[in-house]
Amino acid sequence: MLTIDLPFRTIEWKDRRLILLNQQALPEKLEYLEYTDYRKVIGAIKDLTVRGAPAIGVAAAYALSLASAEFLESVGKGYFKLMKKASEEIADARPTAVNLRWAVERITGLIKENADKPAEEIDKLVVREAKTIEREDVELCQKIGEYGAGLINNGDGVLTHCNAGALATAGIGTALGVIYTAAFSGKNIRIYSGETRPVDQGRRLTVWELAASGLDVALICDNMVASLLSAGKVDKVIVGADRIALNGDTANKIGTLNIAIIAKNYGVPFYVAAPYSTFDKRAKDGNDIPIEFRSGKEIVNKEKYEGIKGRIDVYNPAFDITPSDLISGFITDKGILNAGDISAKFV
Amino acid sequence: MLTIDLPFRTIEWKDRRLILLNQQALPEKLEYLEYTDYRKVIGAIKDLTVRGAPAIGVAAAYALSLASAEFLESVGKGYFKLMKKASEEIADARPTAVNLRWAVERITGLIKENADKPAEEIDKLVVREAKTIEREDVELCQKIGEYGAGLINNGDGVLTHCNAGALATAGIGTALGVIYTAAFSGKNIRIYSGETRPVDQGRRLTVWELAASGLDVALICDNMVASLLSAGKVDKVIVGADRIALNGDTANKIGTLNIAIIAKNYGVPFYVAAPYSTFDKRAKDGNDIPIEFRSGKEIVNKEKYEGIKGRIDVYNPAFDITPSDLISGFITDKGILNAGDISAKFV
Repeated sequence: MLTIDLPFRTIEWKDRRLILLNQQALPEKLEYLEYTDYRKVIGAIKDLTVRGAPAIGVAAAYALSLASAEFLESVGKGYFKLMKKASEEIADARPTAVNLRWAVERITGLIKENADKPAEEIDKLVVREAKTIEREDVELCQKIGEYGAGLINNGDGVLTHCNAGALATAGIGTALGVIYTAAFSGKNIRIYSGETRPVDQGRRLTVWELAASGLDVALICDNMVASLLSAGKVDKVIVGADRIALNGDTANKIGTLNIAIIAKNYGVPFYVAAPYSTFDKRAKDGNDIPIEFRSGKEIVNKEKYEGIKGRIDVYNPAFDITPSDLISGFITDKGILNAGDISAKFV
Repeated sequence: MLTIDLPFRTIEWKDRRLILLNQQALPEKLEYLEYTDYRKVIGAIKDLTVRGAPAIGVAAAYALSLASAEFLESVGKGYFKLMKKASEEIADARPTAVNLRWAVERITGLIKENADKPAEEIDKLVVREAKTIEREDVELCQKIGEYGAGLINNGDGVLTHCNAGALATAGIGTALGVIYTAAFSGKNIRIYSGETRPVDQGRRLTVWELAASGLDVALICDNMVASLLSAGKVDKVIVGADRIALNGDTANKIGTLNIAIIAKNYGVPFYVAAPYSTFDKRAKDGNDIPIEFRSGKEIVNKEKYEGIKGRIDVYNPAFDITPSDLISGFITDKGILNAGDISAKFV
């Protein structure tokens, strides 16, 4: 298996502290922030200091490890109650990515199973489980990369959207994991990244992490997708996912649905890359996935509109739902699946 | 006919000076700039101080009026040669909008026809023709508005892209002319405007001019079009055009093709609003329309990418070509046409 070493680390657990690469400061500054208070990690998830469905799952697990340390020392017998409250606060930090809730439930389930043990021992189990979630994420990315790279031909143009990269996971990324694996195994590919308004994860993060890792990349605005595909420059689209329903309907960063419809129009295969923790057993289809709407200030922030009499509203959904019939395949840690395989593999 | 008075003026000719609303300063500042040198008007067309296909046609006509004054006073007999050179410089300012070349050819044709007359008299004819082009543009917008408003039902949601408004013409605009006419004749409509990366004409100009004129508008990012249409919020899409080929293929601001494909996917009618000067008799189809590529700095300007080893390119076409089969109708000064009508009406 190909070993890929990238020149940055998105999430690290060290001396009972959580270290996060500050994704708000990129691409100008590669800066790491240290956390010892789980409440501040919730803030970091909300304000997108750490983002990407798998990464916020890992960050949530470590946030619970921080909470565990805090409550263990200061409260003693109230541990279970306080951990329950913390886990709810953490799970509510953002609504769409299912990995967040999945990671929290994995840890709270462990606490429940071991409720008869002393808190000190449970605390150790919590930290160990968080580390396991992180290590698994690294391995899941690697598997997704290996399976997905098989879909990429030498000479392909590949378009991605938002950031489903190393910055979105504890490993080499999902969609970008496929691209890294294809590129570093010697395939010559042209990589295109959409800007991804309004938070510009493509322009700030994807383009940075690919170029920081030594790869060439071309940036486009989100509205140039059809121009690019009509010019025949793209052979495959690969994106990540924040939550996938059992019928294959996929929630991902706003703009994904635009691209899926355009890809279908030009007959370009459209793949979703995601680990098993992104599949939501409780979501029958896309209607069961809540969509986060964010502040209009993400779009109109600095502008002052002189002398206006009408009202200016902003419509700002952070995600959209791509119906499964627009998706050519799901690149998972269990191989390339189609929508029909999902229930059999993940329920 | 409905009279619509807007609280700003995009282009004005006054005391042999050209006054342009500075569209670079919007929406923060409503500022007017005065021009007496045609070379500076070329600069204003290139740097988007004035933009929009019909508006740059009118600006080009007045630029030739400025050139005429200059060469009349300083050179005398060299007038024709200098005017020819100036007209070529002006026509080359931007490549895609055909109205620019159309306006220049209308004036140079007039000069040729009257070559036997004294320069002073030709100069008067040039200025008169420029004023005629401006006045015609006002009337064309009004007609387009009246015809198009008939397509809009009370309660409709209407999406537009870029700025095909009063700021893009000497009148009330083309696509926005339809919206103004529908709204000010009493129809209750919801207006959505795409941000229109990378120059943000939607966010800076369309949203400003609609709200300045007293209308409510909702802004979306360009990648939210599919989200918005899948939610059933849009009943009609109306955009402008920079050049329309005889088969109906339409060059318009980058992102138009994205929207047309998405509109077709959801069965939402997609209209192009444009005056007769936008139809190019010399373009058989979209392949005959040159597309302007602009500097990547329009997309990546302030960012510094720390510690990168790979190359970051930018793909920045200013326009795309929407094939005629995605267009439900052309809203023109001669009525609502389909692609098959174009040759009969405009050749």
